Amino acid sequence: MSRPEGEHGGAAAPTGAPAARGFASDNYSGIHPEVLAAITSANVDHAVAYGDDEHTARLQDVFRQHFGPQATAYPVFNGTGANVVALQAMTSRWAAVVCSSTAHIHVDECGAPEKVAGLKLLPVPTVDGKLTPALLEVEARGFHDIHRAQPQVLSLTQSTELGTAYSVSELAVLCEHARRLGMRVHVDGSRIANAAASLGVPLAAFTTDVGVDALTFGGTKNGLMVGEVVVVLNPQAAPGLEYVRKSSMQLASKMRFISAQFEALLGTDLWLRSASHANAMARRLEAGVREIPGVVVTQPVQANAVFARLPRPVTARLQDRFRFYVWDERTAEVRWMTTFDTTEADVDAFVVAIREAVSAE
Amino acid sequence: MSRPEGEHGGAAAPTGAPAARGFASDNYSGIHPEVLAAITSANVDHAVAYGDDEHTARLQDVFRQHFGPQATAYPVFNGTGANVVALQAMTSRWAAVVCSSTAHIHVDECGAPEKVAGLKLLPVPTVDGKLTPALLEVEARGFHDIHRAQPQVLSLTQSTELGTAYSVSELAVLCEHARRLGMRVHVDGSRIANAAASLGVPLAAFTTDVGVDALTFGGTKNGLMVGEVVVVLNPQAAPGLEYVRKSSMQLASKMRFISAQFEALLGTDLWLRSASHANAMARRLEAGVREIPGVVVTQPVQANAVFARLPRPVTARLQDRFRFYVWDERTAEVRWMTTFDTTEADVDAFVVAIREAVSAE
Amino acid sequence: MSRPEGEHGGAAAPTGAPAARGFASDNYSGIHPEVLAAITSANVDHAVAYGDDEHTARLQDVFRQHFGPQATAYPVFNGTGANVVALQAMTSRWAAVVCSSTAHIHVDECGAPEKVAGLKLLPVPTVDGKLTPALLEVEARGFHDIHRAQPQVLSLTQSTELGTAYSVSELAVLCEHARRLGMRVHVDGSRIANAAASLGVPLAAFTTDVGVDALTFGGTKNGLMVGEVVVVLNPQAAPGLEYVRKSSMQLASKMRFISAQFEALLGTDLWLRSASHANAMARRLEAGVREIPGVVVTQPVQANAVFARLPRPVTARLQDRFRFYVWDERTAEVRWMTTFDTTEADVDAFVVAIREAVSAE
Amino acid sequence: MSRPEGEHGGAAAPTGAPAARGFASDNYSGIHPEVLAAITSANVDHAVAYGDDEHTARLQDVFRQHFGPQATAYPVFNGTGANVVALQAMTSRWAAVVCSSTAHIHVDECGAPEKVAGLKLLPVPTVDGKLTPALLEVEARGFHDIHRAQPQVLSLTQSTELGTAYSVSELAVLCEHARRLGMRVHVDGSRIANAAASLGVPLAAFTTDVGVDALTFGGTKNGLMVGEVVVVLNPQAAPGLEYVRKSSMQLASKMRFISAQFEALLGTDLWLRSASHANAMARRLEAGVREIPGVVVTQPVQANAVFARLPRPVTARLQDRFRFYVWDERTAEVRWMTTFDTTEADVDAFVVAIREAVSAE
Repeated sequence: MSRPEGEHGGAAAPTGAPAARGFASDNYSGIHPEVLAAITSANVDHAVAYGDDEHTARLQDVFRQHFGPQATAYPVFNGTGANVVALQAMTSRWAAVVCSSTAHIHVDECGAPEKVAGLKLLPVPTVDGKLTPALLEVEARGFHDIHRAQPQVLSLTQSTELGTAYSVSELAVLCEHARRLGMRVHVDGSRIANAAASLGVPLAAFTTDVGVDALTFGGTKNGLMVGEVVVVLNPQAAPGLEYVRKSSMQLASKMRFISAQFEALLGTDLWLRSASHANAMARRLEAGVREIPGVVVTQPVQANAVFARLPRPVTARLQDRFRFYVWDERTAEVRWMTTFDTTEADVDAFVVAIREAVSAE
Repeated sequence: MSRPEGEHGGAAAPTGAPAARGFASDNYSGIHPEVLAAITSANVDHAVAYGDDEHTARLQDVFRQHFGPQATAYPVFNGTGANVVALQAMTSRWAAVVCSSTAHIHVDECGAPEKVAGLKLLPVPTVDGKLTPALLEVEARGFHDIHRAQPQVLSLTQSTELGTAYSVSELAVLCEHARRLGMRVHVDGSRIANAAASLGVPLAAFTTDVGVDALTFGGTKNGLMVGEVVVVLNPQAAPGLEYVRKSSMQLASKMRFISAQFEALLGTDLWLRSASHANAMARRLEAGVREIPGVVVTQPVQANAVFARLPRPVTARLQDRFRFYVWDERTAEVRWMTTFDTTEADVDAFVVAIREAVSAE
Repeated sequence: MSRPEGEHGGAAAPTGAPAARGFASDNYSGIHPEVLAAITSANVDHAVAYGDDEHTARLQDVFRQHFGPQATAYPVFNGTGANVVALQAMTSRWAAVVCSSTAHIHVDECGAPEKVAGLKLLPVPTVDGKLTPALLEVEARGFHDIHRAQPQVLSLTQSTELGTAYSVSELAVLCEHARRLGMRVHVDGSRIANAAASLGVPLAAFTTDVGVDALTFGGTKNGLMVGEVVVVLNPQAAPGLEYVRKSSMQLASKMRFISAQFEALLGTDLWLRSASHANAMARRLEAGVREIPGVVVTQPVQANAVFARLPRPVTARLQDRFRFYVWDERTAEVRWMTTFDTTEADVDAFVVAIREAVSAE
Repeated sequence: MSRPEGEHGGAAAPTGAPAARGFASDNYSGIHPEVLAAITSANVDHAVAYGDDEHTARLQDVFRQHFGPQATAYPVFNGTGANVVALQAMTSRWAAVVCSSTAHIHVDECGAPEKVAGLKLLPVPTVDGKLTPALLEVEARGFHDIHRAQPQVLSLTQSTELGTAYSVSELAVLCEHARRLGMRVHVDGSRIANAAASLGVPLAAFTTDVGVDALTFGGTKNGLMVGEVVVVLNPQAAPGLEYVRKSSMQLASKMRFISAQFEALLGTDLWLRSASHANAMARRLEAGVREIPGVVVTQPVQANAVFARLPRPVTARLQDRFRFYVWDERTAEVRWMTTFDTTEADVDAFVVAIREAVSAE
């Protein structure tokens, strides 16, 4: 993925750069007011550090209401951390993880799974970011061959990095297939709320109930200031996770403030409200651009992202005014993300701008 | 260090447990109101993620005012992360790090430096948590011997884990000695503000000016919600730090909210005000217990900690009412920490309680 | 690659199993008599350990005669070790390595590059095991993007795992392309002698002279008892290799006996004699099977391997009598390897057996 | 340990350097003739690679005769490899290993346990290289504290790096103590034959019978060309060892030649003959120097090493004529090793030389 010049450094945005508000990423947004209020409310007196506080205790109940009585929630700092902590706890020292070749763990974590955990990733190309049993089998082989890092975990992203969502039955089939192969299933749920909103079913319906062993529950991209949660659904699947969280530098000392944010998110319907809104904005954007000549939407819009191919000069003109990423330089595909505070006006103005950029051709 | 039952799990505190407010750790405290206000103020519209925002840009100036024009500030999540990111960027693949045997990186990070970075730590016992040139030489040897992990970095803690602080001249001598050996110097400054308050000199006076190459600037223990900063003082000392921060899972997407907290802390005198207060409370506590028979203060009180030896039954009685850690079961030594919001009343009530516990003998 | 039942354990071969002599692997062969004689000759009195012996000193001259005056030879135990030691010394902590998806480092080292070195491999599918500039570019991108493990090394295998060999000009173009991208070039030369024999040029012509930075020189598969050599051609390319060799557990204490073997191999024409013979046997086998109906040779025979597709029942019948590997269960492709002591009679008997197995259809 | 100039590089010995034959290390010696004969005998035709050969199969019986019917033998390349493979298989991802501060794994493996396995070593100073239950407890603590790398293995060296040997009862007490703490026991038996010869008991008596879980059986220092064996005594103690051996780059393809050497060593009394001889030579050396004024033997001579303190100028003069290591520059202690082919004449000439060097004072 190509990123705007200077994004990753400490340098200020260039003069004349487009405003940050736009369609670059759902992590450009800020803190949802209800979440910020929860942080403020939790800021009372002292609390025991490292998770032995009331908020973290209550968080267990909150997650169990969504994921069932076996679930345990381990707050961490960020998505990369959540994924790598979960995968380590789920694997032995000689493990491989099968994932889509567009998976965040493969393309966007600077090699953290390999470097921190010594894991081998076995990426499989997909059309739409979604694995299938047949695609899983491309790399889920060589069991008991000591020359091959052993495929122990299937890692899925829900919703995917391409803005698509696995259906409940697709997940059920995949989990069952993985189970037959002796593998565990991990879900990178950085945008799991968007998937739930899209599927219209409870969170457990496409996780606990279909046999997912552990998942990353994303908070930052859905209105939190900072924080993700590793949710272990199968108590046998992730022994020693607490040690791994610490040694992987993902144990927050003032954990109450991460837990309190998730209480606000998941203890009410905020998670679903925000995700549904973001999804609706993506669909509105898709509807708006569908008829624009030269714009080809390339993926089903099943979450809060629209992927489209458009002429390179059009992209260039648009990027003078709005921030968004070119997803694939080679195919001239771009990615537009919506978020909890994207407005209809934002979308409509953007559609107009796209129209103008296309007309200027 | 022995910790109270259940501290590290997700379990709630046992019924009848002492209140969290006490002298267990400076990370039991909450968010300083000025820091929380800064978070709230930063919550305006969107901002580019991963550090290319205005707050992080301004943060560079803030840190340069304290540490000189060569300094670069890299916000991260927590202290373990800050230390391990800095040490990785400062070392090659075959490095060892010399530290005190009480160093946090050695005793309290669940092996993160070894596990995440493959570093070998070479711990040296000290009397007061402070290394000297002679103590450094105990392990800083075997240069060019391929059988020995090469000692490339001296890691100091300032103020130390034992509540003591290196003087400026002690640090100058140590840095010069390390330099002569071809080693870099890292400072774990999880409580560096307390050291500055204790020494009564500017931050640069005992870091940049004496030849420290990189340091961890602690925020969480001085009133932040979450966040530490790796400060690179010698631009040659830590190549690739940005990649290491990402691959070590310490890159915050909504970084503006960590940076804004540090702006509040270091852009005003808040850092020094809070640390000075915490230190004063520690000195008040020391003064209060000094005359109590059976209580022996074991370390100079030069920051925000008091270490004392007291009879084990006294400790037991006290822990029924107040939370604090037994530092060393073998020597019956305990640690009492103060923080930015410890009050004189807190201290005085605790002194009374200690007196009572001793009298009950 | 599917391997015969029980190959990797400590269990004895099943009763009635085919003889080891066959076409399974060039590492099923033993020690070439000239190599064994060299071991015996080196067994005189004591020698300084860890490489400071006369044989290892002389070995430098031997390798420099083949690879030029800048070359340095570092003996190690095995091919996996050689590859992982070289790649570590050539990379920083945030590196990725682009390789073919059939590369031994990717498919046959149980994740050693990831586990031991924290490297991320970026595999690219190929038709014939050979990368091209265009294929390199599939993954050699995202430079300076901190979210992407940085592609620092292109790793090629020569001759490839599919029995093909890069031509001199193919390598020159690839190396030049990698150089322009700022990448180093590593060659897994586990069968580099077979490539040289096939190309009919000196070793330097397709390594040093085209810009290869470092390579693994294979010994075990060409008649040694144990031993490979990391050859560094570009003295700037692999700093600290000696430390990495030790910390990666590849430093032999009685190194003279590895060096002496390589003196025998490369100090005479033995390396070329053996490789040429093995290659000739592969070509003889190819010629023998080319006309057999149902047998399709799938790769050009440019080294000591023949890849062929044949009906699965034929494979099954053949494996009752001869050991060889099914390369790809999905395509019914098999691999037949020849080695320095494969005889014309071995080949001819095998061709007859294939004919018989086919006829039995 | 200070090593003679140039030992670790590829450079030739300086002109006028002392002959390699001396008392520097038992790995300066060559291959015992019976071992070389075994290599030659094993060089018949082809054999299945990676351990599925007759020699490796028979090796299991050989080791079981010594260590009991539960033992499994895994040949590897070298001692560092053997130790790190065993320790990995015995531990989880959050483990620490308690060892003596003179342990080879701590001081002489360039950080391999940390780097390859992410293990934290917890070294404990000893007087004579031997741990005791009390010394074990110095670091075997903090169980269930997630901030502390969990002490899971006690690693002992037998005979120790200081030439001493644990008695059977010392080992029994230590193993029992470790067991009570929930820890496994690993023995670095690089010189285990010397310990057995010294104790005068069968190998099982101080390993299997006292509760050792896994050990490294040293070959190289006792007359092999190359090779060590990880011996797993407790079948539950080291799951996945075969994968770890491969991913740690310690799986020999032509394993028959390592196994055949061990058959020669342990299938006859060669191991004991050689070790007893080496031990006798050490005792002869000790007897010879005991009366020399200014020479102080500093450790009990219980294996094949003599440690002595002698005036620095004496050491310097001696090193002009004989190779040996200064063990500790600070205490002027030197180490003299004997080996299977050290002769009485060697020892006597050395004693004369020491006398002369002392007289020259």
